[in-house]
Amino acid sequence: MIVLFTDFGAEGPYVGQMKAVLAQDAPGVPVIDLQHDAPAHDPRAAAYLLAALAPEFPAGSVFLAVVDPGVGGARRPVAVEADGRCFVGPDNGLFAIVLRRASISRCWTIDEQPKRLSATFHGRDLFAPAAARLAANGPPPGGATDPATVARPDWPDDLGQIVYVDRFGNAVTGVRAATLAPGVRARTGGRTISFARTFSDMPAGQAFWFENSNGLAEIAVNQGRADKVLGLVVGSPVVWR
Amino acid sequence: MIVLFTDFGAEGPYVGQMKAVLAQDAPGVPVIDLQHDAPAHDPRAAAYLLAALAPEFPAGSVFLAVVDPGVGGARRPVAVEADGRCFVGPDNGLFAIVLRRASISRCWTIDEQPKRLSATFHGRDLFAPAAARLAANGPPPGGATDPATVARPDWPDDLGQIVYVDRFGNAVTGVRAATLAPGVRARTGGRTISFARTFSDMPAGQAFWFENSNGLAEIAVNQGRADKVLGLVVGSPVVWR
Amino acid sequence: MIVLFTDFGAEGPYVGQMKAVLAQDAPGVPVIDLQHDAPAHDPRAAAYLLAALAPEFPAGSVFLAVVDPGVGGARRPVAVEADGRCFVGPDNGLFAIVLRRASISRCWTIDEQPKRLSATFHGRDLFAPAAARLAANGPPPGGATDPATVARPDWPDDLGQIVYVDRFGNAVTGVRAATLAPGVRARTGGRTISFARTFSDMPAGQAFWFENSNGLAEIAVNQGRADKVLGLVVGSPVVWR
Repeated sequence: MIVLFTDFGAEGPYVGQMKAVLAQDAPGVPVIDLQHDAPAHDPRAAAYLLAALAPEFPAGSVFLAVVDPGVGGARRPVAVEADGRCFVGPDNGLFAIVLRRASISRCWTIDEQPKRLSATFHGRDLFAPAAARLAANGPPPGGATDPATVARPDWPDDLGQIVYVDRFGNAVTGVRAATLAPGVRARTGGRTISFARTFSDMPAGQAFWFENSNGLAEIAVNQGRADKVLGLVVGSPVVWR
Repeated sequence: MIVLFTDFGAEGPYVGQMKAVLAQDAPGVPVIDLQHDAPAHDPRAAAYLLAALAPEFPAGSVFLAVVDPGVGGARRPVAVEADGRCFVGPDNGLFAIVLRRASISRCWTIDEQPKRLSATFHGRDLFAPAAARLAANGPPPGGATDPATVARPDWPDDLGQIVYVDRFGNAVTGVRAATLAPGVRARTGGRTISFARTFSDMPAGQAFWFENSNGLAEIAVNQGRADKVLGLVVGSPVVWR
Repeated sequence: MIVLFTDFGAEGPYVGQMKAVLAQDAPGVPVIDLQHDAPAHDPRAAAYLLAALAPEFPAGSVFLAVVDPGVGGARRPVAVEADGRCFVGPDNGLFAIVLRRASISRCWTIDEQPKRLSATFHGRDLFAPAAARLAANGPPPGGATDPATVARPDWPDDLGQIVYVDRFGNAVTGVRAATLAPGVRARTGGRTISFARTFSDMPAGQAFWFENSNGLAEIAVNQGRADKVLGLVVGSPVVWR
């Protein structure tokens, strides 16, 4: 399957245009919209979110992942394979955390000349054809590259900040709950917050943190909006102690 | 086909994660996003909306329906068959109106042990696998249960309140228009509102009610927003007289 | 493939209900959501956007295009073929620009009696079945009509106004960049704006116009929101000089 992970928004014609390419170049391959509200213009926050979500998906999945503030500039287009899943997109750190956590990885620089190449929509013109080719088991989309050359910024193993706020105001951090000591408390938005297993274990209106369904530590308020109560946005710092 | 009806929002990674399960467990079965902005945390309003929308869909359709404020708590996971369509989700009243209007019904308690079970995302871990199995004509997802044991709260046959407000500010009620006397007027938002067949039958700016395309009574303002003009939100009462 | 282009919004049950019709009447045909936030109630702006987007799609594509403020009124339902692509929807000018730019065109008036016809949802009841039939290579959905009878309002070849504002605040005009002299400047929102090839060619905060990935002139601000900076909304005038 091909899995879409972008900051394009679900509205607008961008996702549909990429899907039209995929439908033509990889007919019959299921296409899943994982998320089109990835942290906008923020490959770092997106990298932690993507690394937490990817293990859900079966081996052979191809992620078309585009959070690309430098589109049209010098950053390299790449395809990366990490523990059996492929990732296609800009080489701006977006795949750094996936690669760091992988046992086995391969990489290709996308150098295929596309049918056309607009200055602003490499998702459609460059990355979608490459993802389709990988998903359809075609030849690699470019020359093999040492995975060590893929951008690996000096980012922490887990990111102590909010990386996503959902429709209900729940605020996801870039920290894997399994890395935290049991019973440890979170400090964010000027408050100290205890752990709970799930919403229904807390009184209404009470803030808590829990291990979300993708293994990340998440801040919530039962029957309330954590983002409003605690003033959280993508980028807000969270520390545990 | 599998039909998704949730309050998860179209944005965020939740719907995509459920679809990844469906694509693996029921390959080739079409998946339709009916609505991801069902009344949030409000199984009662959602129950009337779902019951109005379901008859659109062909026999054999499987609804994966999740409006589940009690996730992780004690409510039972169920699969219900009503007049040839199946519904999978939490037993919190969400299927009460569908069942009340059905001639023939069956029920199973979902007791299959899932591969994993997060505390907060039963849609992905419990309900999606059960829906996929039903859609792929597999064995039932649990033991047969008397449909009389499914939650059937003491709710009215039709719900005199707003259950959904759409992008244009049109406000859908939980009342089937066919239950209303011709020419009857609606009282809501401090105003008395006449019937019209459709938008183009009314002058611009005028509020009216009409029978919407799913048979529900709906409040609208031609070339305006009924929600703003009349101050309507999900839960606002509407009476006819 | 069937391509959806509407002003229904991605949320709400409307798109899903159309897709349920398509899945039944044209099983196995890929359905692509191109855009559900087309200019609301504005067939003129939508006509320029649709005409810019359509050439992306392969011959044989069927567009189910619904921007239909007159639903339930007197406007005619039509199917139009233009240079190998089909367009199904209301005859209110929405297809005027596609037709004007086409070398070869055909037209049918949709006169098939649908299974049911609600007053407010012709997208589901009338247009979706006709689009499905065309996509499944069935008989035409009605009698052949002289394409000259299709609504062709006295609109300009290119529309000097904003026709779409995306998630990032970039503002798309209805003017094909190829019709503009190189180096010409745009005047909009009280400012004069220079051309740039792409975002990364401009300093942060600077407004510019560029040829977008569909060939339209688009107004943007690098690392900012053009809509806020310049006060642009759908309908705002833009002139070049």
